[in-house]
Amino acid sequence: MPVINSIADLRDLARSRLPRALFDYIERGSYDEITWSRNRDDFRRLTLRQRVMIDVSSLSTGVTVLGHHWNVPVGLAPTGMTGLFWPDGEIAAARAAYQARVPFVLSTMSICSIEEVRAAVDGTFWFQLYLMRDRAFNDSMMARAREARCEVLVLTLDLPLQGLRRRDAKNGLAVPPRLTLASAGDMLSRPRWLAGVMLNRRRSFGNLASFFPKKGTAALSDWVGSQLDCTLTWKDIAWVRDRWPGKLVLKGILDAEDAASALVTGVDAIVVSNHGGRQLDSATSTVDALPRVLDAVGGRCEVLIDGGVTCGQDVLKALALGARGCLVGRSFLYGLAAHGEAGVSLALGILRREFEISMALTGVQDARQIGRHVLVPDPPACGLNRPR
Amino acid sequence: MPVINSIADLRDLARSRLPRALFDYIERGSYDEITWSRNRDDFRRLTLRQRVMIDVSSLSTGVTVLGHHWNVPVGLAPTGMTGLFWPDGEIAAARAAYQARVPFVLSTMSICSIEEVRAAVDGTFWFQLYLMRDRAFNDSMMARAREARCEVLVLTLDLPLQGLRRRDAKNGLAVPPRLTLASAGDMLSRPRWLAGVMLNRRRSFGNLASFFPKKGTAALSDWVGSQLDCTLTWKDIAWVRDRWPGKLVLKGILDAEDAASALVTGVDAIVVSNHGGRQLDSATSTVDALPRVLDAVGGRCEVLIDGGVTCGQDVLKALALGARGCLVGRSFLYGLAAHGEAGVSLALGILRREFEISMALTGVQDARQIGRHVLVPDPPACGLNRPR
Amino acid sequence: MPVINSIADLRDLARSRLPRALFDYIERGSYDEITWSRNRDDFRRLTLRQRVMIDVSSLSTGVTVLGHHWNVPVGLAPTGMTGLFWPDGEIAAARAAYQARVPFVLSTMSICSIEEVRAAVDGTFWFQLYLMRDRAFNDSMMARAREARCEVLVLTLDLPLQGLRRRDAKNGLAVPPRLTLASAGDMLSRPRWLAGVMLNRRRSFGNLASFFPKKGTAALSDWVGSQLDCTLTWKDIAWVRDRWPGKLVLKGILDAEDAASALVTGVDAIVVSNHGGRQLDSATSTVDALPRVLDAVGGRCEVLIDGGVTCGQDVLKALALGARGCLVGRSFLYGLAAHGEAGVSLALGILRREFEISMALTGVQDARQIGRHVLVPDPPACGLNRPR
Amino acid sequence: MPVINSIADLRDLARSRLPRALFDYIERGSYDEITWSRNRDDFRRLTLRQRVMIDVSSLSTGVTVLGHHWNVPVGLAPTGMTGLFWPDGEIAAARAAYQARVPFVLSTMSICSIEEVRAAVDGTFWFQLYLMRDRAFNDSMMARAREARCEVLVLTLDLPLQGLRRRDAKNGLAVPPRLTLASAGDMLSRPRWLAGVMLNRRRSFGNLASFFPKKGTAALSDWVGSQLDCTLTWKDIAWVRDRWPGKLVLKGILDAEDAASALVTGVDAIVVSNHGGRQLDSATSTVDALPRVLDAVGGRCEVLIDGGVTCGQDVLKALALGARGCLVGRSFLYGLAAHGEAGVSLALGILRREFEISMALTGVQDARQIGRHVLVPDPPACGLNRPR
Repeated sequence: MPVINSIADLRDLARSRLPRALFDYIERGSYDEITWSRNRDDFRRLTLRQRVMIDVSSLSTGVTVLGHHWNVPVGLAPTGMTGLFWPDGEIAAARAAYQARVPFVLSTMSICSIEEVRAAVDGTFWFQLYLMRDRAFNDSMMARAREARCEVLVLTLDLPLQGLRRRDAKNGLAVPPRLTLASAGDMLSRPRWLAGVMLNRRRSFGNLASFFPKKGTAALSDWVGSQLDCTLTWKDIAWVRDRWPGKLVLKGILDAEDAASALVTGVDAIVVSNHGGRQLDSATSTVDALPRVLDAVGGRCEVLIDGGVTCGQDVLKALALGARGCLVGRSFLYGLAAHGEAGVSLALGILRREFEISMALTGVQDARQIGRHVLVPDPPACGLNRPR
Repeated sequence: MPVINSIADLRDLARSRLPRALFDYIERGSYDEITWSRNRDDFRRLTLRQRVMIDVSSLSTGVTVLGHHWNVPVGLAPTGMTGLFWPDGEIAAARAAYQARVPFVLSTMSICSIEEVRAAVDGTFWFQLYLMRDRAFNDSMMARAREARCEVLVLTLDLPLQGLRRRDAKNGLAVPPRLTLASAGDMLSRPRWLAGVMLNRRRSFGNLASFFPKKGTAALSDWVGSQLDCTLTWKDIAWVRDRWPGKLVLKGILDAEDAASALVTGVDAIVVSNHGGRQLDSATSTVDALPRVLDAVGGRCEVLIDGGVTCGQDVLKALALGARGCLVGRSFLYGLAAHGEAGVSLALGILRREFEISMALTGVQDARQIGRHVLVPDPPACGLNRPR
Repeated sequence: MPVINSIADLRDLARSRLPRALFDYIERGSYDEITWSRNRDDFRRLTLRQRVMIDVSSLSTGVTVLGHHWNVPVGLAPTGMTGLFWPDGEIAAARAAYQARVPFVLSTMSICSIEEVRAAVDGTFWFQLYLMRDRAFNDSMMARAREARCEVLVLTLDLPLQGLRRRDAKNGLAVPPRLTLASAGDMLSRPRWLAGVMLNRRRSFGNLASFFPKKGTAALSDWVGSQLDCTLTWKDIAWVRDRWPGKLVLKGILDAEDAASALVTGVDAIVVSNHGGRQLDSATSTVDALPRVLDAVGGRCEVLIDGGVTCGQDVLKALALGARGCLVGRSFLYGLAAHGEAGVSLALGILRREFEISMALTGVQDARQIGRHVLVPDPPACGLNRPR
Repeated sequence: MPVINSIADLRDLARSRLPRALFDYIERGSYDEITWSRNRDDFRRLTLRQRVMIDVSSLSTGVTVLGHHWNVPVGLAPTGMTGLFWPDGEIAAARAAYQARVPFVLSTMSICSIEEVRAAVDGTFWFQLYLMRDRAFNDSMMARAREARCEVLVLTLDLPLQGLRRRDAKNGLAVPPRLTLASAGDMLSRPRWLAGVMLNRRRSFGNLASFFPKKGTAALSDWVGSQLDCTLTWKDIAWVRDRWPGKLVLKGILDAEDAASALVTGVDAIVVSNHGGRQLDSATSTVDALPRVLDAVGGRCEVLIDGGVTCGQDVLKALALGARGCLVGRSFLYGLAAHGEAGVSLALGILRREFEISMALTGVQDARQIGRHVLVPDPPACGLNRPR
């Protein structure tokens, strides 16, 4: 078996194991993938300060986010169709997250329903909601999440309508999922369980099962597509804020003005995100937006970042800029597709170890002490470093 | 059939369907293609602001240019030899533009004549003129355009003599069109109608038919080449201004000083253009020139941009900088060569949809409200973004 | 035989002669190799001033470092497992260094022991020490180094714990060395002497032989791994300073604050280093860090640089910024793996000649006169040079 | 026959016709070729201002350099061994230059002697001299040049000793020329006349024939190598200035301080040059150095540029920055190797036509009016152009 010691290794495995259409769904971005590239490139450009002769025998990687302890500042982002990459993929990921003492965020667009995850996992998890036009649906999802003891509700804001992921369209895949016969054939030929999921309409989106019509395969897609609510305004967030008793997190903010508006709604945390480079192409990278959002927030709520984190060094950089923690999507999905729950644990372990070593080599003993001093200022004082 | 969801897809189709010499004619730039590359690269570097929680259920993509409504701020640029890429290509393109409620600009160097387009298309169209040494010719063309109810006359200024498109020369193609036997053979072997056009001298440039001599195939080329007027000055623009009763647009301005001179002539609009990277190599990109031209104009006439627009995000960026609208050449020609009128409609539809989604994701409800606030300032306030 | 006139040529030879796992061990960096790339790229970006009409008939390349004359400002850095690349590799390298009148730094992690090198080489050499948790070990190593008349002790500071070199792990190689059977097979199939070294546990790390258990091959690795001391602080440097009567050099400093701390301990020299891009990934390049360290030191101790030097021009650049000399690791290891002692001499000769020619063409007659005036300031005064 | 419409086309032809060792000699630079790349890249980065509506019917490309009229500001640089690329290559090039009314500079290291060129060419030409240790040789060369009515003497300053062109060394070629048997075999197998030149020692360097020993093939190389004078200072230039009655030009200056020193010697012109990227690697590009040299000179002598000019746009850029003219080496050698005298004429014609078109499209009617106003300032006023 090949040695796996990076997220890139897990990605290679995932690519070899998944039907092409599903791997592409995980991997790719929207339109010309300009923002998708920026997410990663901008992280790489940041420079860490190597420090020496600091006792790093006792490293504490834990952080407190929304009053809860995370063993390492890396949670699992909400990702659609996770249960297509491994049988009961949401449950596998949630279990790995619980083992690692980091949060798992269940997506509205999951294959396993809230109740299934609740029943199969010991710890708590977060729930991500797309506010739909149907207020009753929104109420119902919140009720189910409360019932499942989800303490945190994550509203995704950056999908009022959907950016085009060109590769998905070419593969016959779209979100909400829709398969051409050709693409479905490629998928179904491989894992038997996958065929089962894809052919069972009622099963394929657990949270949305009640919306299935008696007949007609296209109905769900149509329903979801037509229900994406592009009329939402900050008043709708206030509406949720009034109804949701737990912590409320807004995901998909890149802009200082939006961050300021979010504060007004009494939100508990913001996730700086551009939907993994899958919505507005030419948007700024998440790590480039982070300092602007932090400036606007001024400590009045917590700020997480999602998008572009591919190694532990990136986690350190994000925290150095002021993020409380990171969410990773692709990184854990590669692990999930490669080895299920064990693969997610492996991904989290790789990120944790890289983060730990990078803390040690920057002389930071406690993740809560990470700050701007961990970065080399840009441009450097000496003026000899031309841009790269 | 392959899924088509980007201008790049149409380009691939066009490449597979056109004789190489014609595809290259559409595609390539002059000399080392430095400016040709800059046109696209500089658009990609601009960064859009993602905004959320703005009601984008009702998006208005329409703009007013020269007093007329465009359904989307994307007109069809004047392009030479359009009728070689599809039978009666100018008519096909004009019809698609009319369907989309955007302008089509008929080139002097068209295969179909003004009168043929006029007769075949319901709506109006614009006419583009190269001022030639022969004043009678210029008068005659203006008279024919008036007769055809063209409300807008576009004078192209950046071709006093012709920059070398090296690939065209290697292919035996030049503008004015001239084919070597080898290259002609390649062309003529494929679409039968194309052979017809190429062999029928009187047909090949409809607007110039009266200049054909009784005999001699090279005569037209010689005439055009010798008639390109490199003595033109702003006085000649004033001469046209006096004679043309409709709207007058000057195309091919990149420089603030030239924009100021254009204002003096009483022009209605300027098109910032470098002839698609086909004239002065090492000239600045159109999108880089746009803010300088706008500063010089100070709102005293309308400003359009032509060159480098390959997706709806680029349209949004151009308007954000202050352009009233864009003209696209290659983007619609790919569609035309791929599927005729339907292909042009497809190209316009792709650009429109990309523009619409990008408006929604930047939180703009009405294209007339697009402005600098849609862009992330450069360099960013946080100072962490090294150049890319 | 191919002409060898650059370090790159020696690298090609080394690649063809060494088992893959050993070549990769020499060559590669840690994690995504961002810092590894920066080390080289940042040297390349610096610009030398060409000067003419200066009498360069008599060039003096010698410098004084720590009171000793070096014929050329290029010493041999401490490198682990050097004796695996050529039989008795440490001795071969030490002899070549002595011939060239530059220092050789013997690594703690050498195959040949201090005493073996001492017995086989005429001149003196430096000794590099990793401070281990076991103070008795540290005392013992210092005593042996004193006994061997090493005048300079180099403490490596940037390895409190070990960054992951992904390629090594994939090859089954780790530092401290550990071989999988597969990788060992590849290695042992080639040079017979190498098999001898690898199979003889007591031989494989001469300096550490006393730590070998009676049985069990993994014991040494475990011991070293568990002995890397991540509790070290500046007090431990003071402890060494008190016990070591010779010159003391601290290697692995990239940061101005660490340089200031080093001064307090009474150190004689600092080596700006990031362990060849093998520890903290995303750390700054050595040449980028050099001016900041020099500013902090303000002439109170000598400063050397290690990492990124691949040609004589780089040596000139390092001295121009203020370094007293350079240490090269990979450059001499390529030579060693290619041709043993003669190869190291060849590498040193190439670097010396390139340095000499570059001195002549920048109009510097004496290496001690190299300074900032040898570089073109950045950004250039004329403002025409966009970043590259 | 393929269409030739760029210097790149001539380069391709030259590559196909020349023995590899000779093509590489023309083409490549020294060491890592950093400066060699910068020469070209820095020219490409400059941006020309497109201007319109200026009467460019009458373009004057002529300039006055050192009191003489050049039809186009492009002279032929002194290049070594020119007679190996075409029979009597120096004569062919000189004739083409004379036809085009631009200067040809005969190199000391020519195959044809001064007298042979003098006898075969109608017009005058310039002579380039390497000052050797042997003052009698220098005197003799100057006397021969005077005798041949060379009005301008060019002293090359940037070769006190020789930078390593790695590819030449690998090919068994060095300057002064020296061939390994293998490399010679490759050369001699092709053009018969080339074999003749290479085998005829007395013929191979016409200007140096008197130095040939009676026997021994290596003698000339040794003599030249040992005679390169690395003791030269500005006093030696004064010595030449006293003896040479014509115009004196110093070639190989990149630095403002050296330019100032040159002025003191009463020089008539400076050629900004880095020997085509063949001497100091990491030196600045010629076009980057040009403004600094011009600032230092302040109009007190003329300034030419040599290196990096590959198209007519580059000529325009160089003049825009303030150069009086350009010298091209590789560009004309490609033509020479491709088609002899006709090829050099073709190269000059291409550069002239590109220059002319670029003048027209930047609205310059007379080459003597080219200035900074032809360039877009960098960084642009609008601040939207990130570095490329």
